[in-house]
Amino acid sequence: MIQYNFGRGEYKDWVVAEADFSPNHLKKFEAIMALGNGYMGLRSATEESYFGEKRNLFVNGTFNQADPTEVTELPNLADVTQIDFYVDGERFHLEVGEANDYVRTLNLKTAELVRSFTWTSPQGKSFKFDCRRFVSLDERHLIGMKVDVEALNEAAFIEIESTINGQTTNTGAQHFLNGIPRIYGDDQLEYTQTTRQSNVDVVVVSQHHLSKEAAVDKLMERRKVGVSYQFDIEPGETVTLEKLNVIYTSRDREFLPGGANQETIKQKAHQTLQQVSQQSYDQLLASHSQAWTEQIWGRYNFEINSEDHFDQLAVRFSIYHMMIMTPDHDSRMGIGAKGLSGEGYKGHSFWDTEIFVLPFFIYSNPKVARSLLTYRYYGLESARAKAKENGYEGAMYPWEMAFPDDGEVTPLYGDIDIVTGERSKIWTGLIEQHITADIAFSVNQYYEVTHDEQFLNDYGYEMVFESANFWASRYEWNEAKNRYEIHNVIGPDEYKEHVNNNAHTNYLSYFNLKLAIKYYEYLSEQSENVFDQLDQTFNLKANYEDWKEKAEHIFLPAPREEDEVIPQDDTYLSLKEIDLDKYKKQTQPRTIYKDYNQPQINKLQVTKQADVLVLLYLLEQTFLKADLGFNDLLKRANFDYYEPRTLHDSSLSLSTHAIVASDFEMMDMAYHMFRRASEIDLGTNMKSSKEGIHAASIAGIWSIAVFGFAGVRLTPGGLSINPTLPKQWNSMTFNIDWQGEQLRFEIDQDNCKISKDSMTELPITIQNQVLKLKDTLTVPLAFQYN
Amino acid sequence: MIQYNFGRGEYKDWVVAEADFSPNHLKKFEAIMALGNGYMGLRSATEESYFGEKRNLFVNGTFNQADPTEVTELPNLADVTQIDFYVDGERFHLEVGEANDYVRTLNLKTAELVRSFTWTSPQGKSFKFDCRRFVSLDERHLIGMKVDVEALNEAAFIEIESTINGQTTNTGAQHFLNGIPRIYGDDQLEYTQTTRQSNVDVVVVSQHHLSKEAAVDKLMERRKVGVSYQFDIEPGETVTLEKLNVIYTSRDREFLPGGANQETIKQKAHQTLQQVSQQSYDQLLASHSQAWTEQIWGRYNFEINSEDHFDQLAVRFSIYHMMIMTPDHDSRMGIGAKGLSGEGYKGHSFWDTEIFVLPFFIYSNPKVARSLLTYRYYGLESARAKAKENGYEGAMYPWEMAFPDDGEVTPLYGDIDIVTGERSKIWTGLIEQHITADIAFSVNQYYEVTHDEQFLNDYGYEMVFESANFWASRYEWNEAKNRYEIHNVIGPDEYKEHVNNNAHTNYLSYFNLKLAIKYYEYLSEQSENVFDQLDQTFNLKANYEDWKEKAEHIFLPAPREEDEVIPQDDTYLSLKEIDLDKYKKQTQPRTIYKDYNQPQINKLQVTKQADVLVLLYLLEQTFLKADLGFNDLLKRANFDYYEPRTLHDSSLSLSTHAIVASDFEMMDMAYHMFRRASEIDLGTNMKSSKEGIHAASIAGIWSIAVFGFAGVRLTPGGLSINPTLPKQWNSMTFNIDWQGEQLRFEIDQDNCKISKDSMTELPITIQNQVLKLKDTLTVPLAFQYN
Repeated sequence: MIQYNFGRGEYKDWVVAEADFSPNHLKKFEAIMALGNGYMGLRSATEESYFGEKRNLFVNGTFNQADPTEVTELPNLADVTQIDFYVDGERFHLEVGEANDYVRTLNLKTAELVRSFTWTSPQGKSFKFDCRRFVSLDERHLIGMKVDVEALNEAAFIEIESTINGQTTNTGAQHFLNGIPRIYGDDQLEYTQTTRQSNVDVVVVSQHHLSKEAAVDKLMERRKVGVSYQFDIEPGETVTLEKLNVIYTSRDREFLPGGANQETIKQKAHQTLQQVSQQSYDQLLASHSQAWTEQIWGRYNFEINSEDHFDQLAVRFSIYHMMIMTPDHDSRMGIGAKGLSGEGYKGHSFWDTEIFVLPFFIYSNPKVARSLLTYRYYGLESARAKAKENGYEGAMYPWEMAFPDDGEVTPLYGDIDIVTGERSKIWTGLIEQHITADIAFSVNQYYEVTHDEQFLNDYGYEMVFESANFWASRYEWNEAKNRYEIHNVIGPDEYKEHVNNNAHTNYLSYFNLKLAIKYYEYLSEQSENVFDQLDQTFNLKANYEDWKEKAEHIFLPAPREEDEVIPQDDTYLSLKEIDLDKYKKQTQPRTIYKDYNQPQINKLQVTKQADVLVLLYLLEQTFLKADLGFNDLLKRANFDYYEPRTLHDSSLSLSTHAIVASDFEMMDMAYHMFRRASEIDLGTNMKSSKEGIHAASIAGIWSIAVFGFAGVRLTPGGLSINPTLPKQWNSMTFNIDWQGEQLRFEIDQDNCKISKDSMTELPITIQNQVLKLKDTLTVPLAFQYN
Repeated sequence: MIQYNFGRGEYKDWVVAEADFSPNHLKKFEAIMALGNGYMGLRSATEESYFGEKRNLFVNGTFNQADPTEVTELPNLADVTQIDFYVDGERFHLEVGEANDYVRTLNLKTAELVRSFTWTSPQGKSFKFDCRRFVSLDERHLIGMKVDVEALNEAAFIEIESTINGQTTNTGAQHFLNGIPRIYGDDQLEYTQTTRQSNVDVVVVSQHHLSKEAAVDKLMERRKVGVSYQFDIEPGETVTLEKLNVIYTSRDREFLPGGANQETIKQKAHQTLQQVSQQSYDQLLASHSQAWTEQIWGRYNFEINSEDHFDQLAVRFSIYHMMIMTPDHDSRMGIGAKGLSGEGYKGHSFWDTEIFVLPFFIYSNPKVARSLLTYRYYGLESARAKAKENGYEGAMYPWEMAFPDDGEVTPLYGDIDIVTGERSKIWTGLIEQHITADIAFSVNQYYEVTHDEQFLNDYGYEMVFESANFWASRYEWNEAKNRYEIHNVIGPDEYKEHVNNNAHTNYLSYFNLKLAIKYYEYLSEQSENVFDQLDQTFNLKANYEDWKEKAEHIFLPAPREEDEVIPQDDTYLSLKEIDLDKYKKQTQPRTIYKDYNQPQINKLQVTKQADVLVLLYLLEQTFLKADLGFNDLLKRANFDYYEPRTLHDSSLSLSTHAIVASDFEMMDMAYHMFRRASEIDLGTNMKSSKEGIHAASIAGIWSIAVFGFAGVRLTPGGLSINPTLPKQWNSMTFNIDWQGEQLRFEIDQDNCKISKDSMTELPITIQNQVLKLKDTLTVPLAFQYN
């Protein structure tokens, strides 16, 4: 079971712990305790093997198509973590004998995984194990491991078998050609593998250091290389094995431009291995943890004083995972929907990045946000190709994106259709199109928060113009109604396939066009140079007229007169309503699929995830807010209508609802949703997270706190803040980057204090009052809970 | 541990039993208890999963090249055997809780695998399990399974998860494109997969029948489809699950000529499934066991009355495994070196078939022998291509053969070289060339025993002529010595690479030439028609002259004058001798590789397996015997020289030595070797057989009994028999097919009785006396043990 209050002293509220070993929950802990550094991600499978485990090591960006019938995905690299111990010839594992004092901890502050326990073999021999591991932030190619084994009562003959194992697959799909194993001396392993289709070379090298003289056997089999150490251990003796693993791939930034051949990569790997091998595990860990302190917890420091320590831990857990999954080192790479913590969603990037994760970076580390948006810029060529293939103009972003030039990588088939018994067809890659507007939204948000003109000049304008071109070509003219419409799409609510005029899609496309128009007008007036260049390539003037005409005539589904509910699409409000109580109370998501298949769900008034609400939430943060007449009453009406119909069957859903609930000071509901969102991964449901953590939901934990409880919001007038702490929270302290400066927020139930280092005057809206912030500003708060 | 005396009543000496479950020995029992029917082979992995298991299902002939860097191999098909049981949510397996009365039996007579035990969960709930399985001989596409679970003391909530799992690989190599799962109703699964390179479609369908109403969940994930049954069980209640699995592939004989598309294969699979589903497991098992009784134990009946019942069991074990591994249904398929019982040697055929396994079929079921030789005939085209590639004429058989047109499929790399740390290079595919002559030897042996002229006309002459053409082109002229030599080969003793004039190779090639000459002369005189046809295609006359000239001048290493030892090759007798005691006493094979690498072993007088001895043993069974002057003194001298230098590090080795020892009536040694050969798979060494049983060694068990102890031998004068039973054996009874008739042999320490059904007079040599057998003949025996 997960334990939240395990940390002590300086690690209080920093430690996620597993207090009892259970072979039923291996995958859960592998994912939520995953290690990583943005370059690579490592699931925390135990050293010794169990049935049901899933060993995963991913290096960001190494996408490969396993076979022609599948889409590209992040391949599961050779495993270095498996170390098996044999005591007098019997394999040690925790399902036999007796384990005591078992605890596995992920210390979020030091980013070290530690597992310790005593174990008594079926023959009565007792040992103390202490297994430690980190994926270095200081040297991003390094995985450090250390195992101490102490004999407590009797002497024994110990064998330790440690391998690099390339027999791993992605759930049976093998991405690599047969690799080349090699052993150097008695303690160094090498395994070189190459992906089948994308031709990425991967070199893994491992250096062992055993604290004691031992007999050594060298092991080599197909796709596997290893060493076996054999020795006698005496009562009271501790033997330590350190295993340092270094990984390089031909896709690494180090080898840009032009890449590298296998020999060069091997040399580089051995060079790094030799370098790190000069130091002990403890020394390497110290450098790694120091990097976490300096680069991460210094910048993203977030303090919560809550009745329940879980809340503080949850926000740190959120930041930890965003750190380990994000390739801040390389703009050719995005964030996978499961980060690097599992095979789920194949490492692909969805709108999850822009709408759920990116805001964290925009407000906390704009450099990383810029890199992630640049990734989308690199994807423009593919997006243009996709538009063309579908008969459109401009850039039509893929619903799922892998390496920038991979194009659309959404699989064609999904889970079982319980009615037909066949795999269900996945339509999102063809018709879930709002992502193109979501990316344009994100470009604007990034710019408004950072004022990074250079980004717009280099990348942003082109992205916005080309996505506007897509929408302009996408619209269908309805002659009878004298308006443009968008037919046959899936909106954010994926329980409604093939709908017409999904509100989110229509409105966001409108925003996209208006943004292009705004940028055009700004550029043509202010920045002749940039304008001329873009105009030459993209014939902006002609497009500009088209955008204006389209924006004027696009159908924006209006709120119903009687209740201000915006129809999610043309038919939603007239669909059959059923009693959703059973599904609202579910402990596993998507239980509705046990009763209905997709075509049947399509005909019910039931929503997978926030759709109209995310639209309202997003667009109120733009220059359109006033134009559209969105206001709090409208938002409330839609919340009241859609929330009961929303099953939150997507992990993306809760954060939006929680933020909107906070806007109405419905803090019990908002806090409850904060907990539920946190518990998607960090909760006691041992069946979630198996295929990886939920990146968007994890970002949502931070978002609910900052955009919901603290009420931080981008408005046409600039930064706005409207704190409404839940009653369980005494205070929260966090930082926000705003147009080049770091602002510090200290909020409690009575006051909000904002400070920054400079004396520059910054206009800021606090509880709807526009104030000026110099170096510090404290405002008393008045909550009115609903 | 293995138990040999478990069978009772009619099953006495028919049952191989595992008396205690151990997770360390999974692979051993999976292999030695494998099921099969020549069409397919199934390793006997347990229903519930364990770390270290290896689930394998092979269909003969479905070869595929997993990736361009590897050689083709038999792909591991989707698994149907895994069935997991959950008791109150906890997965049942035998490493937790307490198991009692555990026994797993393979009944060789009924060819059924049964596992039964009681198990008490960690929570104290007790159950009786009874798991049964067979691979049908009656319906070769069927795998029948049945599991009874009885609740002994408490009620419990049971979940049974049963799948077709296509995530299986061959040690990490995935042969199949992503497959297509489908579920029909609540109880029928289908999984369709296609090999990547050879484009073989495989359809697996499974029908479940649960004896009790249950809630059902349908499971579908990547490469996997399943059902989960959930129900409450009451104390005293027994619930039974039957699972019938049907497999068809596009390579099946049913679809010849022309093959079939996936739809046709699916239809056929469902049709068969529907048909077998009309019957219960018990009914289907009865038909299957009846087929074993009639088709197998009727024909191959072999009785031994020995001091140790193990011996009887061992011979039945030998026959059982030869039955399940041999594709008697399809001449396009050969016998793998590990049968169908594991991934070892990739399903490839070696000389093991002709020299070690084929004699069993030649003497017991010539139709099967004919099919296996026809397989080599189908390989002629590839053998010609290999000769051509290497600059030779005629047919150069591949050292390792897969599907007939795959050509040479020996891998390029093997185990670790302990000196360099790299994979060692495998030379056999290039230079182990004696197989071409071994196949010619086999053609002759088949003909001499069967007098099947039609086979020679259709296939045999061409094979012998073309292999003679190979040797004629292969010879190198040594001007100085005025003779032909063969340089740079590996003989049967693979511990000597790159040798010149390996005696086995030179002599067998000479035999091959002489056989071609003999056939030529016979044909040109006796069978004008066949001769003319072959002459037209192969220009026999010119070749004939060439064969004669080459046969006259080929260097046949002569016995040393001082001791009659035939030099194994040009240098062997002058190599360094080391103390081999340590390796002769080894309990695992190939321990010498822990001290020396291949280049070093090359320089020592140490032999992996019978080389000169197998030569003497083979050639004395031909028309050459007199020519060559081989006699018993010479054989004895070579036995005395080479046996101490032979480590028997190949499982092929012992049977030849045991037979030769029997020839000298060294029965203690011969019997000891019989036991050692039997124990390679059936012994207590739990590390052997992991990658599959040893086909040649298993055939050797039968061969030692028949060719060694009974002294059955083909001689220029016809059938000869010279029984010398070991003192542990009171009697042995077996059948032999000789030129169209079945002879029955009953041998005890005093008499040998031979009988047959007809009254035709058959000359037969018994203890060097030529006698005439009509319907029965009894001869008193005089042994003289050495």
